[in-house]
Amino acid sequence: MPYDATKMMDWQISEEAEKDMPSPWQWQEKLGLLKEEILPMGRLCKLDFLKIMNRLKDKPDGKYIEVTAITPTPLGEGKSTTSVGLMEGLGKRGVNVGGCLRQPSGGPTMNIKGTAAGGGNALLIPMTEFSMGLTGDINDIMNAHNLAMVALTARMQHERNYTDEQLDRLTKMRRLHIDPTRVEMGWIMDFCAQALRNIIIGIGGRQDGYMMQSKFGIAVSSELMAILSIVKDLPDLRKRLNEITVAFDRRGNPVTTGDLEVGGAMTAFMRNTINPTLMCTAEYQPCMVHAGPFANIAVGQSSIIADRIGLKMFDYHVTESGFAADIGFEKFWNVKCRYSGLKPHVSVLTTTIRALKMHGGGPKVVAGLAMPEEYTKENLKLLEKGIVNMVHHINTIRKSGMNPVVCINAFHTDTKDEIALVRKHAEAAGARCALSEHWAKGGEGALEFADAVIDACKQESQFKFLYPLEMKLRDRVSTVAREVYGADGVSWTPDAEAKAKMLENDPKYDDYATMMVKTHLSLTHDPSVKGVPKGWVLPIRDVLIYSGAKFLCPCAGTISLMPGTSSNPAFRRIDVDVNTGKVKGLF
Amino acid sequence: MPYDATKMMDWQISEEAEKDMPSPWQWQEKLGLLKEEILPMGRLCKLDFLKIMNRLKDKPDGKYIEVTAITPTPLGEGKSTTSVGLMEGLGKRGVNVGGCLRQPSGGPTMNIKGTAAGGGNALLIPMTEFSMGLTGDINDIMNAHNLAMVALTARMQHERNYTDEQLDRLTKMRRLHIDPTRVEMGWIMDFCAQALRNIIIGIGGRQDGYMMQSKFGIAVSSELMAILSIVKDLPDLRKRLNEITVAFDRRGNPVTTGDLEVGGAMTAFMRNTINPTLMCTAEYQPCMVHAGPFANIAVGQSSIIADRIGLKMFDYHVTESGFAADIGFEKFWNVKCRYSGLKPHVSVLTTTIRALKMHGGGPKVVAGLAMPEEYTKENLKLLEKGIVNMVHHINTIRKSGMNPVVCINAFHTDTKDEIALVRKHAEAAGARCALSEHWAKGGEGALEFADAVIDACKQESQFKFLYPLEMKLRDRVSTVAREVYGADGVSWTPDAEAKAKMLENDPKYDDYATMMVKTHLSLTHDPSVKGVPKGWVLPIRDVLIYSGAKFLCPCAGTISLMPGTSSNPAFRRIDVDVNTGKVKGLF
Repeated sequence: MPYDATKMMDWQISEEAEKDMPSPWQWQEKLGLLKEEILPMGRLCKLDFLKIMNRLKDKPDGKYIEVTAITPTPLGEGKSTTSVGLMEGLGKRGVNVGGCLRQPSGGPTMNIKGTAAGGGNALLIPMTEFSMGLTGDINDIMNAHNLAMVALTARMQHERNYTDEQLDRLTKMRRLHIDPTRVEMGWIMDFCAQALRNIIIGIGGRQDGYMMQSKFGIAVSSELMAILSIVKDLPDLRKRLNEITVAFDRRGNPVTTGDLEVGGAMTAFMRNTINPTLMCTAEYQPCMVHAGPFANIAVGQSSIIADRIGLKMFDYHVTESGFAADIGFEKFWNVKCRYSGLKPHVSVLTTTIRALKMHGGGPKVVAGLAMPEEYTKENLKLLEKGIVNMVHHINTIRKSGMNPVVCINAFHTDTKDEIALVRKHAEAAGARCALSEHWAKGGEGALEFADAVIDACKQESQFKFLYPLEMKLRDRVSTVAREVYGADGVSWTPDAEAKAKMLENDPKYDDYATMMVKTHLSLTHDPSVKGVPKGWVLPIRDVLIYSGAKFLCPCAGTISLMPGTSSNPAFRRIDVDVNTGKVKGLF
Repeated sequence: MPYDATKMMDWQISEEAEKDMPSPWQWQEKLGLLKEEILPMGRLCKLDFLKIMNRLKDKPDGKYIEVTAITPTPLGEGKSTTSVGLMEGLGKRGVNVGGCLRQPSGGPTMNIKGTAAGGGNALLIPMTEFSMGLTGDINDIMNAHNLAMVALTARMQHERNYTDEQLDRLTKMRRLHIDPTRVEMGWIMDFCAQALRNIIIGIGGRQDGYMMQSKFGIAVSSELMAILSIVKDLPDLRKRLNEITVAFDRRGNPVTTGDLEVGGAMTAFMRNTINPTLMCTAEYQPCMVHAGPFANIAVGQSSIIADRIGLKMFDYHVTESGFAADIGFEKFWNVKCRYSGLKPHVSVLTTTIRALKMHGGGPKVVAGLAMPEEYTKENLKLLEKGIVNMVHHINTIRKSGMNPVVCINAFHTDTKDEIALVRKHAEAAGARCALSEHWAKGGEGALEFADAVIDACKQESQFKFLYPLEMKLRDRVSTVAREVYGADGVSWTPDAEAKAKMLENDPKYDDYATMMVKTHLSLTHDPSVKGVPKGWVLPIRDVLIYSGAKFLCPCAGTISLMPGTSSNPAFRRIDVDVNTGKVKGLF
């Protein structure tokens, strides 16, 4: 230790580190848990949230550290790596540290990424389980969600086929009069299945469903994943799973999962999903995994449940929010923390010199293609021009009352002068700044970073929300667009505006959170626009209603809730060694 | 013990029995397994097939007992209950017994059945885990299968959008020229989702897939589930997952999962699926659960893998084949045993007086409605008329060289004279016959039954196949239709006949098994026809090609691979006690 990350692939490091990985029962002892608080799942285990929380409810919370990033390249700037590196660095300082990351989606794993477990010496282990479905949370969500769609579509068929009298005799249910043109919910699958984005279902005869337009989204973008991120406990889950709006009826009233009498069975599929899975870093700091990614099209936050037990179990709890600060941090700030009531002590802004150069006008970065020279050789001009993106995000975080720690996630191609330039600008913007070489050196490389975070945690948190809940939907969107994205304003399509007005006028939606859907690849809605663009307007085309999560989700630009599989997908390179059962190609 | 099954619901019995249920580590000791052969999954565990098999490969096999049934009512005649009862009865006789059942599908669980874990004192525990997805095998199958469809549809989109030169540069892949009108494979979901039976996908622009007809089947009917039932080991799985025919190209050549380069990633999703899950009876005989149900539209057999380790671990190994002897046993006999090379010692024919009365002309039996009086009061006339169905199945089993044991699965409404009548006819047909009251009394009620099975196992097995592999497809179908179903012959639609000829003329398909798709509710293709109909012809409308499983599947009548959800589905009654996390309503 550390491993030579320039010579070893991530899976090789994981395999080496797994040799000394604690078993579920060793974790029980290390973390001072009771036997019944551990639910073993192969080499991993789940933690029984309710039992742990009940036992530790009077223990004071540890320090709450959030990790976000600047606007990334399509390759990502190592937010997970940095989160893991921070845990390792804090571990090296002898601190009782742990954290929570999000479970990767099968979509990117099978499409471009291969995995999302950090990298080098800042790796979450075991990598294979993490990448290949973990303990089944996303499958649970998929089953619960699609069961609601089965209930909806079967109901529409039966209501069409039977008279009121037959319906009453057969089902003892009232007619719901579902409007087939106003079905809100779609089906889900955890792959990038663009062919299922827009479909027609129910083709055939009287027993073959109800013919209408329908859609599949990626599982991790679903309302059920949103609910998993923000749910308090099992009673809260049961309640929310009854309140999901699946459609509107012909009079315009919402039809919910409760109306379909399917909320109980959905909860049955998710009764264990609310317990986080325990993994660890390559240096054996405990790290939970709970809820899903995609802060662009989903809430993209590790769960409130995991943060709550993490803050009880650890003196320093590191949590991750998705993608860049304009979306991941904004949702952590105004959605997740509002629901949890928890106040973070510090936010870490993950920064790479590569991404800053891209914002300065560097060539397009494409997954799978070689990096242009601008990114591998010193280029202070591009870097200086792109630093505005980092400064923008520092300013955003400062609006929450926190003073961020900028972590320069070091690449071996970064030069001394490049690092000094970033540091100068970060400090000028009022942030702490630390270089961190966790990828190359693990915790030993993250000591400066860990110290900066420990130091920042000593400050009293002045955390405050960007807007009050009383603010109306369109004003909230306008506030986020101006204050966080740097837009001049917001434009609404007529349909979206009509929906927004309806929602603003119905007091039921007053306490709903506003959960933006927007690309992570730009501060704007257009993924090709880099840096800190000026003089633009954010276009909203729709507002999704997640009444189980209690989210209204304004959708900006053309972003889809079902990504596409590329022409050179990662599944081509994934295989199994049939002699050992080990998965190959996850890197 | 036994529990009062007339007063306690199944879930209450399960809950009581779970209090003394062995933990994974207690099972390890009881079964003499090594620690690394146990993979804990919550309260359950998986068994590492390869490790156990390697260690025990030289141990002689135990007795191999198959359980099938007469043509059932839509409620089922208690084949799982009888299998569990037999294990309990043999257990009471002090015999080293275990078995393997199949994992239920979410389709029936959420639609009509609620669960499928046996019943009364002949119950598989824990019931909730069993009913709600167990250790995730069906989810693994769903992910692996749908990934192949993602690969197919994305490939079709990219081949349409790009020139040969672009394709080569982007993907280094040759153009597959997939024929959109000859896509064989569909998507899967483990619910009765009739709305997805016939769909149009790929609607939208250039990046939204390839527009074509498509379909969803229920997960347990998929080729991947078929493969799980008959696969030998991990190398065999890897090979088969590369050989699935997803479509034909424009020249008529098969396009496989191997051509799509997705077989490795599919195997990664299924690398643990090949290990059976260990559960137990309410009297604590060990029982594995592996592979899926639906012998009508799928192979519907517990797995060869589980049978192989069961025969090593137990002196008596009980395995279940789906539905009635015309389909479940026929596939066990001519498909599963041919692949495994294992020879069964005895076949148990589960019989109920209720079902025999139905075959004698009793009123329609409908799930959810009260039983007509004919079934709850003595009616020797109906019974005597319906007994032909039992005799037909006895004769079928005798054609395999085995002498069946008829088990009368007792209901408290059965009368002495009714029981005597069944016994007389069973014995006249050359079978052993035993009444078994396992539902009411557990193993104590199954002693006569257990003794009959022990006695039958003392005979040398004369097991032989119905037809040689050299027989051509249409001749095989004709043989099964005449010898097993009692048809006068077979008719083929022009399309099906053309496909059959193509398959007969291609030597590649010579060693494929013939896996019939036919309703289980009748000896014919028409579920409404009961008893032993004469003077009818079996209509074949299609032949599915499962080239990974190496099955050709002739489809009889209108049966669909995607069942429908009824107007009064079971999910309405399923819920979770939010204080305890326990699932309610699974009965």
